[in-house]
Amino acid sequence: MSGTDTNTVHSPDEARIRDLLSEREQALRQRDADRLIAQYAPEVAVFSLAPPLRQPDSWTHDPAGLRDWFATFDGPIGYEFTELHVTVGGDVAYCHSINRLAAMPHGVPQGFELWFRCTICLRRTGDGWRIAHAHESTPFYMDGSMRAAIDLRP
Amino acid sequence: MSGTDTNTVHSPDEARIRDLLSEREQALRQRDADRLIAQYAPEVAVFSLAPPLRQPDSWTHDPAGLRDWFATFDGPIGYEFTELHVTVGGDVAYCHSINRLAAMPHGVPQGFELWFRCTICLRRTGDGWRIAHAHESTPFYMDGSMRAAIDLRP
Repeated sequence: MSGTDTNTVHSPDEARIRDLLSEREQALRQRDADRLIAQYAPEVAVFSLAPPLRQPDSWTHDPAGLRDWFATFDGPIGYEFTELHVTVGGDVAYCHSINRLAAMPHGVPQGFELWFRCTICLRRTGDGWRIAHAHESTPFYMDGSMRAAIDLRP
Repeated sequence: MSGTDTNTVHSPDEARIRDLLSEREQALRQRDADRLIAQYAPEVAVFSLAPPLRQPDSWTHDPAGLRDWFATFDGPIGYEFTELHVTVGGDVAYCHSINRLAAMPHGVPQGFELWFRCTICLRRTGDGWRIAHAHESTPFYMDGSMRAAIDLRP
């Protein structure tokens, strides 16, 4: 993770949540769908970069969907949380960040780099902190083109 | 608000947060920028439907930006939270919903209806619950067109 001050002393809960997000970065880079799914609470609500408005339970409980998505890329996947803020209150926490995804879809040798917004909300469960809600997005240009703003940088 | 069971008994904190979001719906319909801004905590981080990735502080602390946006519409503005879920833990809470905006931009007599994802994270302050983070978005079509998916319905 960049954009965070490694000298800051975090509360034990904030440190655990930051570890969970570091594990998420690594799992994305390593195309490890099972580890990503294992971080979800059973009733997780996921709003993804791609349609539909909300991912169906079949997608959030079955690593097959993520595996299919990983299979569309050649070579390494870059993934990073930046400008990460974590707020913890009792058994609930939320995080917001600006994330970077870099990947090379099949047949697109130059690849792409995408910066997007990420909100992750967590609940403390008997198994530790789990992701109960995730929201990832780019804004869109309200100039009549209605293009997704995939060319923004923080 | 629709999509919520009005017979459900909510905890006092959840009831207060649902009231805050009802007030938000009304303020949007009434084009009341001051009431909308007053719901923000001082350090709020807002990820809006339109660029940039994160709204600058000048936008979240000054109602002028919202007033300018309201002024681009003729006639009434429709705004509604649906499929609202509220989770409270101590002094932190998060909500996710699918929202509906209906409005008529100048010179577009048929208007538009947009369904989008909304995440709102709150902190309990000395003045009650305040919005510390908001994230609103549509997904986009990863089919090469990179169009914002503004035609989805829940």
